[in-house]
Amino acid sequence: MRKLAVALLWMAPAFAQNAVDQIRKVLDDQVAAWNRGDIPAFMDGYEDSESTAFVSSSVIKGRAKVLARYRERYGSREKMGALKFTDLEVRLLGREYASAIGRFHLTRAAEGGGDVSGLFTLLFRRTPEGWKIILDHTS
Amino acid sequence: MRKLAVALLWMAPAFAQNAVDQIRKVLDDQVAAWNRGDIPAFMDGYEDSESTAFVSSSVIKGRAKVLARYRERYGSREKMGALKFTDLEVRLLGREYASAIGRFHLTRAAEGGGDVSGLFTLLFRRTPEGWKIILDHTS
Repeated sequence: MRKLAVALLWMAPAFAQNAVDQIRKVLDDQVAAWNRGDIPAFMDGYEDSESTAFVSSSVIKGRAKVLARYRERYGSREKMGALKFTDLEVRLLGREYASAIGRFHLTRAAEGGGDVSGLFTLLFRRTPEGWKIILDHTS
Repeated sequence: MRKLAVALLWMAPAFAQNAVDQIRKVLDDQVAAWNRGDIPAFMDGYEDSESTAFVSSSVIKGRAKVLARYRERYGSREKMGALKFTDLEVRLLGREYASAIGRFHLTRAAEGGGDVSGLFTLLFRRTPEGWKIILDHTS
């Protein structure tokens, strides 16, 4: 029993660190996909579900609709610009969910719309395919 | 065992419905507090923690700082106006956490700043004092 208890104490922070590392990797992969102009690969970070939500000036539901919004707004490499995330804070919500707060920065030439930046809150769910975004509130 | 399984099947939706009802009540209580001009009572909806986060144009951490922001921005009944939440969608994230998406509407006279509305994403944690907001992203 004592061995088990020690093993569990050992596992808890390891699980948390792994989860945070995996979530950061999802976001790193999103940034890499964006910066090579690959919106579908960027969208791999979102859960493929009808309930996946993007909240900004309106609420968009379903990964296909979120993808359509990105395609519409960022239809060229100039409009996509160069993406960077900073100030990332990940918080585990039990073992199956996590939140992340961060800031996005889009560096673009004037013809692409110029630079923009803002804050996002993401909700992640641990799925069989890894941690996936189930909600994105960007402002 | 079968009785236990049946009891558990019975309990799961009851727990979910109770949790959603409790979360809606937290928000109803916030609206009632706001509309009688009681910002501290409104703040009871937020967890009393240094990690409680308010995300808007910047990230504010700690319930005391979130309270200070509300006091600064809504220093009179005219500026507070009449608050209403609509389009509320609550999603349970396991048994200890939940998210809520909704729209706020502030009805105010021109001298109070005029009407405003926007979207919020809230994260709730089930604490010994009930469900409390641990993160509020408002845009």
